[in-house]
Amino acid sequence: MDAPVDCAQLALLLEVTGTPKPGNVDRQRDLSGLRFEHFLAGAIGARPGLEMAATGEPVGESFERAVAGMAAQEGGNTQFGSLLLLVPLVRAASDALTPARCETIATSTTTADAAAFYRAFDHVDVFVDDPPTQAPDVRRGSEAIPAVRDRELDLQSVLALGVPGDDVAREWVTGFERSFDAAARLEARTGPAPDRAAAVFLELLAERPDTFVTKRHGAAVAESVQDRARTLLELDAFESDRGAVSAFADDLVAAGINPGTTADITAAGLFIALADGTITV
Amino acid sequence: MDAPVDCAQLALLLEVTGTPKPGNVDRQRDLSGLRFEHFLAGAIGARPGLEMAATGEPVGESFERAVAGMAAQEGGNTQFGSLLLLVPLVRAASDALTPARCETIATSTTTADAAAFYRAFDHVDVFVDDPPTQAPDVRRGSEAIPAVRDRELDLQSVLALGVPGDDVAREWVTGFERSFDAAARLEARTGPAPDRAAAVFLELLAERPDTFVTKRHGAAVAESVQDRARTLLELDAFESDRGAVSAFADDLVAAGINPGTTADITAAGLFIALADGTITV
Repeated sequence: MDAPVDCAQLALLLEVTGTPKPGNVDRQRDLSGLRFEHFLAGAIGARPGLEMAATGEPVGESFERAVAGMAAQEGGNTQFGSLLLLVPLVRAASDALTPARCETIATSTTTADAAAFYRAFDHVDVFVDDPPTQAPDVRRGSEAIPAVRDRELDLQSVLALGVPGDDVAREWVTGFERSFDAAARLEARTGPAPDRAAAVFLELLAERPDTFVTKRHGAAVAESVQDRARTLLELDAFESDRGAVSAFADDLVAAGINPGTTADITAAGLFIALADGTITV
Repeated sequence: MDAPVDCAQLALLLEVTGTPKPGNVDRQRDLSGLRFEHFLAGAIGARPGLEMAATGEPVGESFERAVAGMAAQEGGNTQFGSLLLLVPLVRAASDALTPARCETIATSTTTADAAAFYRAFDHVDVFVDDPPTQAPDVRRGSEAIPAVRDRELDLQSVLALGVPGDDVAREWVTGFERSFDAAARLEARTGPAPDRAAAVFLELLAERPDTFVTKRHGAAVAESVQDRARTLLELDAFESDRGAVSAFADDLVAAGINPGTTADITAAGLFIALADGTITV
């Protein structure tokens, strides 16, 4: 399992399989209208865009193609954020899968990459709250492209405007720091890959408030989710009392609280660990 | 989701996801040493061989390549039988996905296809009981190829020698009758694709003794499994009492009885239905 595209697809599949992954679709849980099989189909559909990234096509166009393919299923947005991390990581893996290489890829993006990023929003409904006032509004999709061009914004610059409110965007300006950290955590764990993924998801959730939860439900809710994750982590609940983690998962699903950013970073970490061969299936 | 290779991979993923699928790995159940994620990795790894089939490469070599890729995970044999059905079906789909076209593909196979089929056994441990005395022993893998060549056996002829003891082989001499029938059953059902897959799996299991179970445990066990499936089917248990189907699933897993042939035909039916667009995800 060395080809980066295969590792990226398997990372998406392992991410959704890991359970309990509080608040998200996992092997044990569906959400209303968004089911496990939508993620399977999303992972399959994303392939052509991931292949573009692996063969050196522009990052923005590769991402747009990956999103268009991912969205060719009936559940809606399954893996937009994950693909925004995987596309540059796959691109890096064709050369060297290091933070420095990822940083170079991010800083080398152009206005054309930014335009393709905006077009990606035409393919799927992505939840976005009020965008940072400095950035052209992604909710307008490709209609915002003239504003992107006028301001000569490259893709990294667009994403930088989303920091600190979006921790997927934050990866783009930190050399994918938490993604690489997640990979190291996955390697340090033991057991089957989906169990490692779920355990690391809980660690990441305890570490920082999930920015997708913040966007949808506000900072107080995101902090309360983080607090409960931290309490479970301190109790080593994933190993010692998995039922408590499952109860947390059920509560978040019932409340409609989905820490999607944390899932995206987990997927990115899975990709790095699979591509490096530090975890295997 | 129209590209045949994408449909084939998604069929493999949906097949293993459908639950309860008595005796087999499903979304709710792992077997000892053979887990859900091994099937995910098997489906990803099979792609290059499926792509060969889609682009008109010889069926035998495509199958061997698919098996080699499928086997690049740590669980052992996950989808050998499914791929033996999917490879000719994917090949047919690049032209016309009909029983007649499948029959032509099967009858057009050569000694080289048969040799590649034997080589596929070098890549993975496949459970085989005493083979039909008329056929070179697949347990010898590529070492049996001289005997295949001496007797000028094509792949369909090799598989024909396995009928009636192997219902995957039987598809190769019946125009993939049960695979197409499974696709029609999947279309006739309602609900999410994995639920349809599990429901149709039970129908197929009630219809004929599973030949993989017969090989491993004898005809009496296979018939008792069929009887219990038939009773559940008559009660419409998948809709009216899914707990009874789950109990059946748990009992078979505990007894180590895996109706793998029925799973293979379910995967083939899923492929046909996805490629025809009669079921969607």
